[in-house]
Amino acid sequence: MQHSETSTGDSSLPLEVPSDSLATQSKVLVTVLSAQGLPPFAKAASAPNAVTAFHVSKIRVGIIGCGRIGQVHAQNIAIRVPHAILVAVSDFIEEAAMRVAERFDVPLWYKSAEDLVHDPRVDAVVICSPTDTHAPLMKECVRYGKHAFCEKPIALDLATIDDALATVAQANADLRSLRALPRATAMTSNNREEQAFYEFAQTEHNRRLQRLRQSPAGIQLMVAFQRRYDHNFQRARQTHDAGFVGRPLKLHLVSRDPAPPPIAYLQSSGGIWVDQAIHDFDMARFLLKSEAVSVFASGLALDPAIGELGDCDHVLTQLRFANGALCVIDNSRATPHQAYDQRAELFGSAGSIFVHNVHPNTNEYMDTQGVHRDKPLSFFIERYADAYLQEMQVWVQSLVEGGASAKATSPDSSAADGLTMPIPSGFDGRIAVVMAMAARKSFAEKRPVDIVEVDPSLAPVIRQAEQEAASLGKQ
Amino acid sequence: MQHSETSTGDSSLPLEVPSDSLATQSKVLVTVLSAQGLPPFAKAASAPNAVTAFHVSKIRVGIIGCGRIGQVHAQNIAIRVPHAILVAVSDFIEEAAMRVAERFDVPLWYKSAEDLVHDPRVDAVVICSPTDTHAPLMKECVRYGKHAFCEKPIALDLATIDDALATVAQANADLRSLRALPRATAMTSNNREEQAFYEFAQTEHNRRLQRLRQSPAGIQLMVAFQRRYDHNFQRARQTHDAGFVGRPLKLHLVSRDPAPPPIAYLQSSGGIWVDQAIHDFDMARFLLKSEAVSVFASGLALDPAIGELGDCDHVLTQLRFANGALCVIDNSRATPHQAYDQRAELFGSAGSIFVHNVHPNTNEYMDTQGVHRDKPLSFFIERYADAYLQEMQVWVQSLVEGGASAKATSPDSSAADGLTMPIPSGFDGRIAVVMAMAARKSFAEKRPVDIVEVDPSLAPVIRQAEQEAASLGKQ
Amino acid sequence: MQHSETSTGDSSLPLEVPSDSLATQSKVLVTVLSAQGLPPFAKAASAPNAVTAFHVSKIRVGIIGCGRIGQVHAQNIAIRVPHAILVAVSDFIEEAAMRVAERFDVPLWYKSAEDLVHDPRVDAVVICSPTDTHAPLMKECVRYGKHAFCEKPIALDLATIDDALATVAQANADLRSLRALPRATAMTSNNREEQAFYEFAQTEHNRRLQRLRQSPAGIQLMVAFQRRYDHNFQRARQTHDAGFVGRPLKLHLVSRDPAPPPIAYLQSSGGIWVDQAIHDFDMARFLLKSEAVSVFASGLALDPAIGELGDCDHVLTQLRFANGALCVIDNSRATPHQAYDQRAELFGSAGSIFVHNVHPNTNEYMDTQGVHRDKPLSFFIERYADAYLQEMQVWVQSLVEGGASAKATSPDSSAADGLTMPIPSGFDGRIAVVMAMAARKSFAEKRPVDIVEVDPSLAPVIRQAEQEAASLGKQ
Amino acid sequence: MQHSETSTGDSSLPLEVPSDSLATQSKVLVTVLSAQGLPPFAKAASAPNAVTAFHVSKIRVGIIGCGRIGQVHAQNIAIRVPHAILVAVSDFIEEAAMRVAERFDVPLWYKSAEDLVHDPRVDAVVICSPTDTHAPLMKECVRYGKHAFCEKPIALDLATIDDALATVAQANADLRSLRALPRATAMTSNNREEQAFYEFAQTEHNRRLQRLRQSPAGIQLMVAFQRRYDHNFQRARQTHDAGFVGRPLKLHLVSRDPAPPPIAYLQSSGGIWVDQAIHDFDMARFLLKSEAVSVFASGLALDPAIGELGDCDHVLTQLRFANGALCVIDNSRATPHQAYDQRAELFGSAGSIFVHNVHPNTNEYMDTQGVHRDKPLSFFIERYADAYLQEMQVWVQSLVEGGASAKATSPDSSAADGLTMPIPSGFDGRIAVVMAMAARKSFAEKRPVDIVEVDPSLAPVIRQAEQEAASLGKQ
Repeated sequence: MQHSETSTGDSSLPLEVPSDSLATQSKVLVTVLSAQGLPPFAKAASAPNAVTAFHVSKIRVGIIGCGRIGQVHAQNIAIRVPHAILVAVSDFIEEAAMRVAERFDVPLWYKSAEDLVHDPRVDAVVICSPTDTHAPLMKECVRYGKHAFCEKPIALDLATIDDALATVAQANADLRSLRALPRATAMTSNNREEQAFYEFAQTEHNRRLQRLRQSPAGIQLMVAFQRRYDHNFQRARQTHDAGFVGRPLKLHLVSRDPAPPPIAYLQSSGGIWVDQAIHDFDMARFLLKSEAVSVFASGLALDPAIGELGDCDHVLTQLRFANGALCVIDNSRATPHQAYDQRAELFGSAGSIFVHNVHPNTNEYMDTQGVHRDKPLSFFIERYADAYLQEMQVWVQSLVEGGASAKATSPDSSAADGLTMPIPSGFDGRIAVVMAMAARKSFAEKRPVDIVEVDPSLAPVIRQAEQEAASLGKQ
Repeated sequence: MQHSETSTGDSSLPLEVPSDSLATQSKVLVTVLSAQGLPPFAKAASAPNAVTAFHVSKIRVGIIGCGRIGQVHAQNIAIRVPHAILVAVSDFIEEAAMRVAERFDVPLWYKSAEDLVHDPRVDAVVICSPTDTHAPLMKECVRYGKHAFCEKPIALDLATIDDALATVAQANADLRSLRALPRATAMTSNNREEQAFYEFAQTEHNRRLQRLRQSPAGIQLMVAFQRRYDHNFQRARQTHDAGFVGRPLKLHLVSRDPAPPPIAYLQSSGGIWVDQAIHDFDMARFLLKSEAVSVFASGLALDPAIGELGDCDHVLTQLRFANGALCVIDNSRATPHQAYDQRAELFGSAGSIFVHNVHPNTNEYMDTQGVHRDKPLSFFIERYADAYLQEMQVWVQSLVEGGASAKATSPDSSAADGLTMPIPSGFDGRIAVVMAMAARKSFAEKRPVDIVEVDPSLAPVIRQAEQEAASLGKQ
Repeated sequence: MQHSETSTGDSSLPLEVPSDSLATQSKVLVTVLSAQGLPPFAKAASAPNAVTAFHVSKIRVGIIGCGRIGQVHAQNIAIRVPHAILVAVSDFIEEAAMRVAERFDVPLWYKSAEDLVHDPRVDAVVICSPTDTHAPLMKECVRYGKHAFCEKPIALDLATIDDALATVAQANADLRSLRALPRATAMTSNNREEQAFYEFAQTEHNRRLQRLRQSPAGIQLMVAFQRRYDHNFQRARQTHDAGFVGRPLKLHLVSRDPAPPPIAYLQSSGGIWVDQAIHDFDMARFLLKSEAVSVFASGLALDPAIGELGDCDHVLTQLRFANGALCVIDNSRATPHQAYDQRAELFGSAGSIFVHNVHPNTNEYMDTQGVHRDKPLSFFIERYADAYLQEMQVWVQSLVEGGASAKATSPDSSAADGLTMPIPSGFDGRIAVVMAMAARKSFAEKRPVDIVEVDPSLAPVIRQAEQEAASLGKQ
Repeated sequence: MQHSETSTGDSSLPLEVPSDSLATQSKVLVTVLSAQGLPPFAKAASAPNAVTAFHVSKIRVGIIGCGRIGQVHAQNIAIRVPHAILVAVSDFIEEAAMRVAERFDVPLWYKSAEDLVHDPRVDAVVICSPTDTHAPLMKECVRYGKHAFCEKPIALDLATIDDALATVAQANADLRSLRALPRATAMTSNNREEQAFYEFAQTEHNRRLQRLRQSPAGIQLMVAFQRRYDHNFQRARQTHDAGFVGRPLKLHLVSRDPAPPPIAYLQSSGGIWVDQAIHDFDMARFLLKSEAVSVFASGLALDPAIGELGDCDHVLTQLRFANGALCVIDNSRATPHQAYDQRAELFGSAGSIFVHNVHPNTNEYMDTQGVHRDKPLSFFIERYADAYLQEMQVWVQSLVEGGASAKATSPDSSAADGLTMPIPSGFDGRIAVVMAMAARKSFAEKRPVDIVEVDPSLAPVIRQAEQEAASLGKQ
């Protein structure tokens, strides 16, 4: 980790754009910025742009993984998240990274995720690559003092998760350990401009590390449970927080995909409880505000190919929570109507809340056959479009404010004040995996499984949740 | 109007009607018929009316038990069931019987349920008395060749149920065993009219027994699962029968009462799975068209008084059916909105059906607080008013037609042809009790319980249901 | 019409039913009563039954006209209206009267409507015959001291209506003018029983006239605006009465039939504003609680056959009310969905109320095509089934109580106390016709028409309504 | 890149911007671009950015008027409209323009609307300034070869509208008349970069004029009827286009604002039919696909202050269309629920379509008071957020494609292909004003008013619409 820094601290940008460049510029990344001819940085495959990349008043975000969800985040950060600027994307399929970079005017693109993490112009990283890369990349981010947003699940096994989370904890405990800019050799250039830029990047990176070291919040890790930022569920939670439900007694969650993912994906997904129900496990904790104690799961495989994997495509999962509430989660990998089926019913001692499906429009049609309306939104990209935006805004806001709690600016005007709550943490990401494991075990052994069977370390957490519920009950 | 009674023997009717009883009833049952001055029959406490009682073109129905549900049946039979005439009611609180008789112009009333059963003017009996009397009265009905309609549950233990059902089966196997009118000696009178009437009653009774003996259908026993006759659930079933759902995969039932029954009732009710969920167990079989294989139940007692009984007030029950379908039933003894919550969702491979709550009106109100509508109907009497009528109509129609299958004339005009199906039988009544027992056991032992653990005799039934599902799957 | 009355006042009924009649009775009217062999009374075509007909504690109702709506009323009075007994029906197609009599156990039937009115065993008459007979029959009822319920419209011209209403007013002003039993000659018999019965009938009729003469309420006339008794609209009115709406500003009514009536009917119906919109004119007054000032109507004839009659099948009618409220009524003779479309929206300064369509069930179906539900109830018989029952119950209750205001026992449990209001009167029936005439005139002359143009006599009524609104506005 | 410009005449731009204006702006628009130090252009108050402003692959849009709706357009163009770039804003309150420029990184801002129009870096102009400036600015845009998007209404009188539209027509007929860049004197600079940039701007402007002169589409004028781009209404229209409705017979539109605008606005707004109902007049034409023939309007003023202006706050407007369809429009300036009430019902011979209100979420709440949901979206900014985006996208797309017809990329996934239709034209904007005038006249004169009374020149348009309907009817 040798690194010599010679930056003068002068942030001026020596720009000498030839006047004819205007006339001759080809379409480089669709962005005017790319015309400025700055050198590639480090191993960046793209044309970096110093100005953009060192925008001082915004969080400079890099996205790893340019698949479906990576593109959603890219679009949001590129144009709709205040205080953030999308400066880099990466994908092991380099063309994918390039296409996204071009579409959203991103000045830097990488084939290597690590290179993106190491780039001093990146402040914070969104990890959307395959599951098995989540934990290593999270650790790499932390080592280099980068905030991380990690798609779920963190990993398919607890050891890996625990190792990653320990790294975060360790780093935040000893923020001095954060690594400085890597490999100096790539950072020098004979080109005067390049060299000046490099030095500036160095400086900025060091400044940022310095700030992190002085911040009590340290490195912010957010796990991607975007449904918490869906305005319907948020409004439900907000109404619950206001006391409408009283003591929560039962929760029904329905969460069905329109059609199953490819078999190839299912072969390493961890099964329906890990790859699909995990969102609902988190939603159950979010709406019930307690911890699961035991799980009973049953399922069937309508699609023989899924059955051959030992997986299910239609399951019911029943949970008991520490506050006494009962919960049933209905997951399916396919619906007959080929639309996304996302509902909740929270039933309590004082009131009930229903979150119904979202339809593309409010129209009704009536003819001799009956009354009709268009079916619900097709899938998560559509249903949770606003939620994905909200979670990015919240994460960035938490980075700006240096704290882990941030308020979403909900598009739901009925939720006057929005909901302020901690961002989903590594702990949240981990416990949802434990619940999924318990469900899988329950299905395999055809019996209810206690959470602490899967993870004894959660015993005190559950005990505390029980005590909180008991003391609430006594009030 | 002197009357000497010398009846002896087990089937004899001990008649001790004070002769002045007729003279002292001022308003004679509000019915014009009572003016005709016919003599009391047997030891009926009421003023019998021979003409009505021997109306030959209608089924003469007697109701045992004049509580809430007895009154519902009384009103329906009295005025809204074609081909039936309500000729007798009984209640061990005689005033209750009298009040119902007066309200609905019923010519005969009894304190003793057995007396009602024995009266030759009664063709068919509706048993609405407490649960522990169901089986004995059912047997008594059968012995005297009377059709019976029995409120659920038949009994709280299988031995009693099996004994009762065996009696029905035995009687229908050997219809010659049906008992004739009890001891003739009690049936003589010096009064010419009385004597003529008595002889007519004898003749009619014997004719009826004769017809029964020649009928392949024999004695019709119907168990009261009125929800099968709710037009919403019927329409759902009809739509399912038409193939809309494809293969049924999941069923959600919500069935919550507005408020718990008195603790006194709960002390001998058999618990929430027997006294409440039993309707849902039947509805699950009705909608899934298969048999339950295993049950997992969890619950909680919010009300400490209910908890002290070892009972629950909020439960979730999960079932696996022989056709592979998964089912979850949500029962509560109380809702925060203090209304009746009755819903279903049948999710299949081709389509989904939702049965929503029924509201008292279609109105919506909008003010600064939001959009409002009146809460659902308050309780079963209101929600299932039409269903109670339908089931009575179907039962009576089955008696008229001499067969066990009858079509309801649904008030749902969208269900063009109505649904023809067998009436809920003793078997249906029994298996719902078995399912309730399995759920209770599951809750106690905190593990899934197979139906055959509770009742091994159901193994072939379940096996057949599995084979039917398998052969359907192969088509 | 001299009449000598010799009744002794003895109400005993000399009944001597031969005992063998029981065994031999054929199916006469399906009712056991008809076996009693009493002679026909007056010109009654049917076998009268003295006992039934002189039931002293109930209002004895006769129905004129056994068409669709007549049968609805017959069924309700026969079995579902407390304190009423259906004793007679008539239809100029005698077979129609017989069929209804047989179906509902009605002891008397007539071919002649006048004979029914004259029968002393009839206390109150429901007039369901064609429109041109309404006014003459109403007058005949009044002359003989019979309460009358008249289907709308009273007549198609104001002169006829005014003449009829004047007769009612005159009769109630001078109740001594009520006529006694007609032509004595038909009322004597050599048969002892017949003669005794006749005398009894005479006595009863006179007693009733006597009571009427002493009653301040006099003869009750109700005009059939059954929608006022629909529980949805009642609940809307009740909510409005409670102040929810504040000052009513706008009312939208949609009232569309599934399919047009036969052309033959339309030739003399008075046109769409008279035969269809008249219900909505009344509903507008009911919901706005004020009087119409002016009308503007436009329409089109999609069906050329309807256009040739100068009639429309699709119209929009706009009204201004004395309280300033604006109203638009949408009537169609046919809907594409072939179902009954009945809705209202009352928009006020404090809140809005919507009365939505009623559907046969609450089910929803979801498949790849979308979400579906069954279309609304098919037509008025189905949609207003409860309303027809309610209006009969209210009318009969008003007769029993001797006053013009009665409370419906609404099936809507959310309307805790029901709505007490005056029954729709002759005035109500008349003013709706005036509104229809104004609409027709507006359509013909393509300009807004003031109500007082059609009927100047309403000027003070409208002025008073304006003053009431003004004084309310000042509060 | 030599360029000599000799433009003279009244359209010249008196440019005298002090060069130190750059130095005085501290926070340079938050945009990285502003760092590049390019000189102010013309008399722009802002720091122009040559690179951005001459982005060759995007339409460079300027917005006049930075009020509420101007900001909506600014945000959309700035970040969500592909192929567009927001290069300039203006507001006669300069601070308003500056704030918007800062918020959305707009490099140019002006106090003078004309200056914005004249800036050669602006290709297309969105006119959101007060109504009386619409027509003059539209003409100015046209004179300088700028496409224009004009908020409704074009003007409050037909003469002004006709003059403006004639200017557009004339310009498109003789595209050679388009004016070149104004006054050359202001366009020179001693600064090398400034001079180079100026010359480039000149060249680009001329190139664009050249392209326009060769384009058959010419200058694109779009009038802002954004509701046509609401996905609910679009889906309704699309369904209608597909034949679902058959022949349209009736249309109900409800369009109510939550609360009235300030009295000051109302004093010059033209009245409720011009300032509010105009959107509904357009929507009626959009959904009925025909032209209005006559109008009858009634109204009331609940708010005395509004009444004193001769205006109404609650109106009903009834229209007859050339295809025979009847339409009623319900406008209110305030609702009791203080939310935006926007609905439609299109009733036809084959089917009906309802466009219901849009609510902020899908949640339902149930407690002892009933069932509740949050009230509809609060106002147009919220309800039509997507529509505003769509209309901008469509307009820009039409500019890119050089044609007047463009497809919106509807957020409604159920509308598979989107709806391709001509953009709302000057004719559309004009005819809606005529309809509003007819309604106002009808209200004043209390009689139905024919459209041709207000504008005889529309007679052939209406006649053609009638002929089209007639020929459709014959098919």
